[in-house]
Amino acid sequence: MSTSERSRTSDEPTRLDRIVRPLFADQHEGRKFTLANGEYADLVAGSDAQDDCAVFHLSGEQDLVFGSDYVRGAKFMLYERGYLDNYDVGYYLAMANFSDIAAMGAQPIALLSVVRYPRDMPDDEFRNVMCGIKDACARAGALNVGGDIGTAERLILSASAAGVVETGRGLLRSTARPGDRLCVTGATGLAAAAQKYFMSRSLESRRLRGEDEDILLSAWKRPDALITQGRLLSTSEVVTSCQDTSDGLKATIQSIAALSRVGFVVDAANLPVSGAVRNTAALHDLDLLSLILGDSVDFQLMFTVSPDHIAALRDAFSERGLSFADIGTAVDGRDVLLRTPDGDLRTLPGNAWRHQT
Amino acid sequence: MSTSERSRTSDEPTRLDRIVRPLFADQHEGRKFTLANGEYADLVAGSDAQDDCAVFHLSGEQDLVFGSDYVRGAKFMLYERGYLDNYDVGYYLAMANFSDIAAMGAQPIALLSVVRYPRDMPDDEFRNVMCGIKDACARAGALNVGGDIGTAERLILSASAAGVVETGRGLLRSTARPGDRLCVTGATGLAAAAQKYFMSRSLESRRLRGEDEDILLSAWKRPDALITQGRLLSTSEVVTSCQDTSDGLKATIQSIAALSRVGFVVDAANLPVSGAVRNTAALHDLDLLSLILGDSVDFQLMFTVSPDHIAALRDAFSERGLSFADIGTAVDGRDVLLRTPDGDLRTLPGNAWRHQT
Repeated sequence: MSTSERSRTSDEPTRLDRIVRPLFADQHEGRKFTLANGEYADLVAGSDAQDDCAVFHLSGEQDLVFGSDYVRGAKFMLYERGYLDNYDVGYYLAMANFSDIAAMGAQPIALLSVVRYPRDMPDDEFRNVMCGIKDACARAGALNVGGDIGTAERLILSASAAGVVETGRGLLRSTARPGDRLCVTGATGLAAAAQKYFMSRSLESRRLRGEDEDILLSAWKRPDALITQGRLLSTSEVVTSCQDTSDGLKATIQSIAALSRVGFVVDAANLPVSGAVRNTAALHDLDLLSLILGDSVDFQLMFTVSPDHIAALRDAFSERGLSFADIGTAVDGRDVLLRTPDGDLRTLPGNAWRHQT
Repeated sequence: MSTSERSRTSDEPTRLDRIVRPLFADQHEGRKFTLANGEYADLVAGSDAQDDCAVFHLSGEQDLVFGSDYVRGAKFMLYERGYLDNYDVGYYLAMANFSDIAAMGAQPIALLSVVRYPRDMPDDEFRNVMCGIKDACARAGALNVGGDIGTAERLILSASAAGVVETGRGLLRSTARPGDRLCVTGATGLAAAAQKYFMSRSLESRRLRGEDEDILLSAWKRPDALITQGRLLSTSEVVTSCQDTSDGLKATIQSIAALSRVGFVVDAANLPVSGAVRNTAALHDLDLLSLILGDSVDFQLMFTVSPDHIAALRDAFSERGLSFADIGTAVDGRDVLLRTPDGDLRTLPGNAWRHQT
């Protein structure tokens, strides 16, 4: 090994591609765990599948999904600045993990929460973190069944969630087909807009209206894992792939494209836009499409569905008072392009996900 | 709330008792998750059960166990001092989590690993962490199916593990009965002895023999989750309770006593002793029993079994080339006492677990 290789420090996606995936690439072939009574658990999707969660097929007609999310870093500058409190980050930790379960079309059943705190964090602040976790679990209809608490240099939040789904109904990223419609459950860019806006708010004389501020902050204070929507998608039996948009909409589209070996044409005119995001873009002179498509940690679900079935799926959503936007088409090839309102095709704007530091 | 309550900062066991358990105390009663096809997952033991893992009964004859361990802090001073490398801490992370599965009598199937690293950690060092995780998974017969990687202020290692066990065969802490024999799979105190010895090694002119040094370091470099033993205990159908000794032997005995509402009399003469621990105690003028019983992070299994069945269980172990020590008796009441070789009864020496910082 040369000195330059020894000292190389790659970013997170590169380490996933070059180190983690090759190491764990051959795990899932024929891995079946059988108990003394003949019951079994059989790996269907491991880390090499690059899905929101791993999937095990269990004897019977039930699959187990299982994923982990660490929550810290730059995105919690809003916490450091006092816009989010301890309850909020506990709530966020649980919901971020349940969103991965929702993206698989599964029902979350359990959360394991790791909460490590600075030695001088008072009991009532620690309790607020746990209350946030508890309330998010209640909203998701799942249980906090354990984890690990103790001290650390600073607040560290990590969790794992488990869920169950009818056998074979787990929604993967690798199964979109050319001709499918590309859909998303709601507007994106709110989390990034909140960061842009609130991190410079004290320096700016211009402000958003209070209502817009509430909408933006809510993306961080009360994120919502779209479990009902995920269950509708999986039990519909017509959805061909799904992923949550927590890496940003562009990265999500690129991920499904790469894993499904398809391309996409996204219609800019059909992207759902939040007024609060539009107003933030105007206030800060930002490109609106880049904000909507870039690395914003929103928890919408992006999915593909055959055009023959989209109307029925829309009806099923409507019956629950829910909706989604049809934003594009899966195509042959591997290009992911944006169709502008005047019909031109261009590459997608916005930062793709690189790091969550 | 008074100012003093507001600023109170309890230790970890106190927070577990006063904050976490009451918050999540009523979760498991009647919590059943049912899918569209009638399959279900039903919580059997949640965080209030204070077991090594949570337990879900799944439709069919299979239970799911699920636990989480964060690995960092003072015990990794051996890492900071260069006695452990990146491979070792990855290996340790996985095995510490599998030990919780083993203590439930379950077969581990999956690990989710959270590896956050300082931005300047080179690729090859990161790869070594992942290789340690991979090799520990292979040894445990389980799969690393995902997790979370990315940067942080310093190396942070956390993981969750899942396992499966025949329905109703999961080993709990709350089910020991008066009259049961108390047993342990092997010698304890090695992890604490290693810390005592190596943290002052450079200052001491007196050294252990190289062989003893290797034995002590091995407690940290190559800990072993006792999965085969745990499976023997659960499938035997005669073991009444079990817990791993990662909080130290005294804390483990106290935990089973409290949760099972029994007392214990431990025979000092029957405690298994490692020569390396004995030699460390002699070298540093430490009380040997305190070292064996105190807060040493070993991964032995402690369990209780009816005296009628202990011989058959010993035979089953022997057939696999394994053994355990019979160290005491469960008694009525709640006292946990040590019987010294001259027949006196005293409280157990050694620090109980308070913090793992």
